[in-house]
Parts: sequence; C-alpha cells; structure tokens
Amino acid sequence: MRNLRLDICYDGTRYRGWQRLPGQADTVQGKIETALSRILGEPVEVSGSGRTDAGVHAMGQVANFHCHSTMPAEEILSQLRRYLPGDIGIHDCREVAERFHARLNAKAKTYRYRIWNSEGPCVFRRRFVTVMPEKLDLKAMERAAAHLIGEHDLSAFTSVKSKTKSSVRKIYDVRIFREGEEVVFDFRGNGFMYNTVRILVGTLVEVGLHQRDPDQIPALFGQKRELAGALMPPQGLCLMEVEY
Amino acid sequence: MRNLRLDICYDGTRYRGWQRLPGQADTVQGKIETALSRILGEPVEVSGSGRTDAGVHAMGQVANFHCHSTMPAEEILSQLRRYLPGDIGIHDCREVAERFHARLNAKAKTYRYRIWNSEGPCVFRRRFVTVMPEKLDLKAMERAAAHLIGEHDLSAFTSVKSKTKSSVRKIYDVRIFREGEEVVFDFRGNGFMYNTVRILVGTLVEVGLHQRDPDQIPALFGQKRELAGALMPPQGLCLMEVEY
Repeated sequence: MRNLRLDICYDGTRYRGWQRLPGQADTVQGKIETALSRILGEPVEVSGSGRTDAGVHAMGQVANFHCHSTMPAEEILSQLRRYLPGDIGIHDCREVAERFHARLNAKAKTYRYRIWNSEGPCVFRRRFVTVMPEKLDLKAMERAAAHLIGEHDLSAFTSVKSKTKSSVRKIYDVRIFREGEEVVFDFRGNGFMYNTVRILVGTLVEVGLHQRDPDQIPALFGQKRELAGALMPPQGLCLMEVEY
Repeated sequence: MRNLRLDICYDGTRYRGWQRLPGQADTVQGKIETALSRILGEPVEVSGSGRTDAGVHAMGQVANFHCHSTMPAEEILSQLRRYLPGDIGIHDCREVAERFHARLNAKAKTYRYRIWNSEGPCVFRRRFVTVMPEKLDLKAMERAAAHLIGEHDLSAFTSVKSKTKSSVRKIYDVRIFREGEEVVFDFRGNGFMYNTVRILVGTLVEVGLHQRDPDQIPALFGQKRELAGALMPPQGLCLMEVEY
C-alpha cells in the first residue's frame, strides 16, 4: 500500500467541520474522500491531523491516506484540484513513508484567531473574522498570554472534558498583534482540545476589555470550564500549520 | 434639502451590479435606497459615481442623496450599517455642499483588476480574483501599458459603442505589480466606459502571454472592438477610489 500526504486549505463557511459524519456530505473530509475514491477507483479513507469545527477554516491542514492505485502523486493532485469545490484547495500531494500518520505524528499546531476590531465595514474579510469593534488593550492581553506559555492543565478551556484523558497540554508560543483593522492571535502548541483556542481567545478578550485581570490566568489551570471566558464564534479561527 | 455623501464598499458576488433595475431587488443601489427610505421615512434616490457591472466589487464607491430628514449624519451611518447586509459596507456618511454630485463631479477613478497567477489554491481569495495560472510577462505588459497613458479614443475597448457620445478618455496611470500569488493591475483615469477596464486587462494579458506585441497598442486607438483583447470576467475587478 502507498501512503500519500495531502496539504489542504479550506474556507470552512459552508461545512459542518472537517470530520466526516455518517450520511452527511457537507464535511471537508467527506468531500476529499469522495473525490479521491472516484479518482483512484477504490475506497479511500483520509486521516486528518485533527478535527476542525463547523465554520472553522484551515490554511495548512495535513492529512494522509493509503491506496493501491499507481497513479502518480502529481496526477492525483491535479485531478483533486479539478474535482474539489472552490472552497477546498490542495497545496500539495506527495508520497510519504509508510509510517507517516497525520494525526499521531503531529508535533505542533498553530491556530490563528482574527478579530475585526473596527466600527468600519469588513465586507471583504467578513467570512474570516469575528467582528468586535470595542477597544482592546493589547498590552494587557499579552501579559495574560505570557502566563499560558508552558505545560498546563487546560481543563477550564475545553467544552467537553474527558474523564479519562489528560487535559494537560503544552503551549509553545502566543503572539498577539494588529494587522490593519484586525487583531490577530497566534497559538502554537503540541495540541489543542475541543474548542480550546476559541475559549482561550474569549478569555484573553475579557482581559483586553478590562473585565478580567491578566494575572488571574494561572488560577484557571486545572479548574472548571465556568471560570474561563466565553467561547468565541468559529469563523475567526483558522488552522495555520501542522508541524511534524 | 440636505445633500449627503456616502462612501461605500461591496462584495459584488451576489449582486446584478450597482444600478437599480426595475422590479429587481438584488442591486447595490437598490439595497441602499431601500434601507435609506426606511431609515429616513421618505423616498430616497441615490446617485452613484458610476455603475459597476454584475459581480464587480467596490472598495471606494461614492454616492450622494438628498433628503428632508433632520437625522444627524452619524445616526444615518450607524442605522445604515445595521440595516444593510454584510456584503455592503458604509465607510462614511457626511453632509456635503448642495452642488456636490457623485457622478458629475468625479475627476478621476481608480480600478483594480486581480489575477490569481498560480496553480495553487485560492480558497480565501476566490471571490475577488480571476484565476489564470499561465506565466505572465510583466515587463511586456508594462511596456504595452505605457502606450495607454494619455488621452486616446478607447472605442476598441468598450462593449457598447455609443454613436453619439465620444469614446475619448484620459488615462493618467497604469500600474502592474505582483502581490503574493496575484498580478494586480491599477488603472487611474478620468472615466471608463462600459467594460473598458476588463477589455484593457484582457488585451494586456494577451501581451503578457506573448500573443500580442506590446507596441501594437497605439494602433488600436479609434478602432473596432474586435481588434482588442478578450473581455475578462467581472469578479477580478474592483472600483478602488473616486476622486473629486
């Protein structure tokens, strides 16, 4: 069996997220599996580096799949580009070692969250930002974000707490900066749980609005969901990069 | 009667263009007039600086309208922003002199055309670019564009030639540059006829593909439509600025 890696981007607006759902065609994984199965003439299952929620975008999602077909990778790439809708794009398709697994081998992921921080119109960016015109104190948010760096129990920052799995994760870096009318949050870590990035941003935003003290962050580690900030909407979130 | 100026942007994807059409709601002018008439409680007619075709975008469309209402301009602005759909934005609404007319007083307009010049995916830009992955010779296109500067009979560059009106227009500047995966064309002139920018780009692109000699441009002035290049699709075009 060959093992192929796909580097994928998508505008998640009209999808119910990455993960294939039984009987529902409108997932990114479902669209790619259907296209590949037709192109290669055999049933294909694609493993993504992880799920993204409904409405969340990706610039650098990574997946792999096994197949018997001998079709060259470049031919698969060009056929995939022809078959897939305009809101799913393939950066690259290439042969990888048999042991490569997009989810299990992922070492780090970077997610970006974009807030449109202006009263002005965001006509051209509206599918990729969350609108919040209130003044945000970036210094305060940066101070709070510094507490996130390192290995912490992020149980307060996930919507579905597993009773069996650990909620300890390592965050390598958080960057917050302005880009035009947008305030951009970049999170790089060894993995994020369900809704974690959106709740982290919701918590930082409360700091930015002076509704929460930046130095209160460490007191949230290992705590209950209710103590952290609000869940931010999906459309501002984008999976930027997966590192192996 | 008060005279108010609107600075408008829109994602033209789902509209039949700027100009209100009888019995059709899906024009930008129609949407704005309906919103203003409701907000001000009186029938309002809006004059734009000029039409844009179906699918064409605007970053800096300008319009003006007269009204009796005494509602402050800032209040009209904030209500308009509330009423209008997310693909129409208002940068500004302000009181102007009685004699200001968005179309008649326009001194210069700048249009931008964007080509996605890559095999790679344009998932996040696809509504605002025309995809053309073929190699384009920018030097050749710039040489051709230099011939366009000045006052010329652009009859070959319009789809509907008027028998009575002059087709002489002045082009002040043409700039062509790469921005990421895109090739961007900026045209600044005292006015453009129906489809003119899209046909100018179609002609320059033929030069960029080495299908047309750059020095052949002057021979097209005053000529028939058939001699110029193809009409480019609307979604790459954006009205950037109107100067008064």
